[in-house]
Amino acid sequence: MLTLHYNPLTVAPVVAIVMEELELDYTPVLVDFRAAQQTSPAYLALNPKGRVPTLETPHGVITETGAILDWLAAVHGPHLVPDDPFQAARMRETMYYLASTLHVNYAHALRGARWADLETSWADMSAKAPHTMAASLAYLEGHLDFAPFAIGTGLTLADPWLFVLTGFATRLNIDLAQFPNLSAHQVLMNDRYAVRAARNKGMLA
Amino acid sequence: MLTLHYNPLTVAPVVAIVMEELELDYTPVLVDFRAAQQTSPAYLALNPKGRVPTLETPHGVITETGAILDWLAAVHGPHLVPDDPFQAARMRETMYYLASTLHVNYAHALRGARWADLETSWADMSAKAPHTMAASLAYLEGHLDFAPFAIGTGLTLADPWLFVLTGFATRLNIDLAQFPNLSAHQVLMNDRYAVRAARNKGMLA
Repeated sequence: MLTLHYNPLTVAPVVAIVMEELELDYTPVLVDFRAAQQTSPAYLALNPKGRVPTLETPHGVITETGAILDWLAAVHGPHLVPDDPFQAARMRETMYYLASTLHVNYAHALRGARWADLETSWADMSAKAPHTMAASLAYLEGHLDFAPFAIGTGLTLADPWLFVLTGFATRLNIDLAQFPNLSAHQVLMNDRYAVRAARNKGMLA
Repeated sequence: MLTLHYNPLTVAPVVAIVMEELELDYTPVLVDFRAAQQTSPAYLALNPKGRVPTLETPHGVITETGAILDWLAAVHGPHLVPDDPFQAARMRETMYYLASTLHVNYAHALRGARWADLETSWADMSAKAPHTMAASLAYLEGHLDFAPFAIGTGLTLADPWLFVLTGFATRLNIDLAQFPNLSAHQVLMNDRYAVRAARNKGMLA
């Protein structure tokens, strides 16, 4: 049995979408950030980092979106990773960029307290975040295949992640119309059964 | 043929160490940050992100440390990824944490201009970075196997990365003696042939 600890406003819906793509049976557990449940002793016992997603598997707990996705593919859906090692590398290049650059740029809009202590610093970071996030989106707009998926003609692990984080841009008042490839990818993904299923379950904002 | 664009003061030596572990033939190309070579037109044509590492392969260019490492393992050294999918997930969980949390925390010490515009913000970030970096190290100290490697009894892709980034701690005046497991891992890695080979070639600070 798989149990996914998630919050619909975070990156965690990426895992839900991949599990819906694979038609896996899983139990969703909402982590209510307004009630600070991510820092409760029970949750920290599961994931000492106090973040989502966290996936409970029959073998143990896995954290970090990219690690969870690669595990889901290895055990339940190898077709979500390109057979060709170089194309698989391009997929993981995208995944690492989303995790360590684009998402980090976005996080500075709201989570400045992670990296600075002064309110003036947080305001400074918030003001800059739409620019750094837009720069990251511009890089992806010009670098990925969109054929129609991020890496070639088939859905890979990179697509749900790209879809969810690109969607964050509107929260920073970034107009996605300036990125036609990413906009088309949003439409493509929004109409997938797996995305609608995750949304219907309340797992995706 | 493989060509690694690197700078010894960055995370790029991780790739060099893995290639030395695999006894691969490769050409190292220094990217001189003091001369801002990472933003030269020639380099940006190779890697528009202006970062290192960048690996040129016979199939094309790969960026992002984690994507390069997984490609090297897939093509040249599958023994560097655990056979068991759950242990492989723990390896990638560590790799994503290093890329998106620990390295990001460290980067705020010196690279505040990525995320804020005011000098007061940069000073604020610099002052906080040793604390967030130490917190990340404390998490790894308590979470990994150290048996004696990060994930179990054999070297995996996570070890060279953990080794290089843990080494950054001393630049922020963090005393590694408070982390006995990480300290022992530093000693273990420092004495490996691959690490000495990379250092002898000037690829590791």
